[in-house]
Amino acid sequence: MRSLGFANGTIIDLTENAVPLEDRGHQFGDGIYEVTRVYNGRCFALEKHIERAYRSLRQLKIPAVHTYEEFAQMHHLLITESGISDGAIYFQITRGVAPRGHGFPENVVPRLTMSIRPVAANNRLQADGIKALFIPDERWLRCDIKSLNLLSNVLGKQRAKEAGCVEAIQIRNEFVTEGTSTNFFIIKDELLWTHPLSNLILSGVTRSIIIETLAPSLGLTVLEKPFSPEFTHKADEAFICGTTSEITPVISLSGAVVGDGAAGPVTQKLQQAYQMLIDKQCKR
Amino acid sequence: MRSLGFANGTIIDLTENAVPLEDRGHQFGDGIYEVTRVYNGRCFALEKHIERAYRSLRQLKIPAVHTYEEFAQMHHLLITESGISDGAIYFQITRGVAPRGHGFPENVVPRLTMSIRPVAANNRLQADGIKALFIPDERWLRCDIKSLNLLSNVLGKQRAKEAGCVEAIQIRNEFVTEGTSTNFFIIKDELLWTHPLSNLILSGVTRSIIIETLAPSLGLTVLEKPFSPEFTHKADEAFICGTTSEITPVISLSGAVVGDGAAGPVTQKLQQAYQMLIDKQCKR
Repeated sequence: MRSLGFANGTIIDLTENAVPLEDRGHQFGDGIYEVTRVYNGRCFALEKHIERAYRSLRQLKIPAVHTYEEFAQMHHLLITESGISDGAIYFQITRGVAPRGHGFPENVVPRLTMSIRPVAANNRLQADGIKALFIPDERWLRCDIKSLNLLSNVLGKQRAKEAGCVEAIQIRNEFVTEGTSTNFFIIKDELLWTHPLSNLILSGVTRSIIIETLAPSLGLTVLEKPFSPEFTHKADEAFICGTTSEITPVISLSGAVVGDGAAGPVTQKLQQAYQMLIDKQCKR
Repeated sequence: MRSLGFANGTIIDLTENAVPLEDRGHQFGDGIYEVTRVYNGRCFALEKHIERAYRSLRQLKIPAVHTYEEFAQMHHLLITESGISDGAIYFQITRGVAPRGHGFPENVVPRLTMSIRPVAANNRLQADGIKALFIPDERWLRCDIKSLNLLSNVLGKQRAKEAGCVEAIQIRNEFVTEGTSTNFFIIKDELLWTHPLSNLILSGVTRSIIIETLAPSLGLTVLEKPFSPEFTHKADEAFICGTTSEITPVISLSGAVVGDGAAGPVTQKLQQAYQMLIDKQCKR
């Protein structure tokens, strides 16, 4: 089992030089990415990630030059070549390589690169919950595009780490938007609240699975409505969700205990339903 | 004479693969950059660019591992090896290479890469002026950092191009901030107006040369105050400035003619003073 890269159509070692200096990803962050979890050697919710990648590409007017089947084949190739059965596959597509200039270059071919790394299950965090920190949301106004411009997210995550937290939850114009690499939900009186889809948040795959599949199956109602940081102090439970974080309880927000300060019953039910869905899709 | 790259401590061909997939620049835009003009084989205002690079690095908590003298030597090396006497040298420094994760990785070494390309003097644009387009400023809230997160600038420049313009001038909260790769000035009654330094604009090297050197030498007063797009319609002249654009008149803004619709007398005086400064610093 070993981590691997994929560039220029072939499997490579992750330490190899694989990108020219004038790749638009390297110089402008001019590209998009996706991360897909692999459980038992199978990709979970791959079609949703690829669909979102196509959307991000359209928003940036980067031509989509790979079919769904090609993406699926390349994901499969990385799993078999690496021998990794529980991991994460990352891919990014940049606008291509061209002499530096801000506007779109002509006659460029988008460049796909990928990697696979093992991921250890984070059972402890999912059982015990995490501390999170509120920070101002300083990102650009197209957070709906899963782009490579992640510096604000990087700085936010680092602020959380330095404060002894696992995630930073962002606030824009008095409303809670999302984490730096996760979506954010609170639960109050058995209702789930999360920021509505707009240019201010990413349409998370785990978020949409919760809203479309898990919550209905448990008879839970989801309100996609903006809410304030103050409102979170009245919440019974809170959690972050994402491909890597799955569903992880938030037990403290900027030092204030959330609910009972432990993983709550609704969050636990959602975690169980999510695990069942993974088992169903990715069983051997 | 040929364009060249510099990576991993050596001169390379620009088409070579020189960056690993997990360079933080490639995956997060987690780094900074500078562009310096070369005239007559000499770098113009290099110390200002290097100083700004150090500031950007500090803001991102990326260690500065190169001395001023090393930067100067590497710029000199690229000029002599390429044989380019009139061009632009680009450098970027990323946080380093590490397994992907938003927070700062430990034990990484920042990575410097560079390139040099010839630049043709844009005499025609500087004489005739350009058309520009107002667009909403959708960038993040740390525009003072010259970072690799340039997607909003890319999209803005492309909007300008598609509208038959050369630059897009951005508006945030009813005020004019700057171009996508330039600062922006207007002139009214012989006073120069430009957005004050803050987190909303980049402290441009050409901007600072105008404010600190050129305007005083011409007896012109600069007001660093926010102004509205409406105010620009009353302006006598307008121009963009930057390392590559130098001082370029703006003769039309979103279809409205600026002043007389031609390069104005104050702009022309500034252009001449700028050229004299270049000649003085970069004469053979």
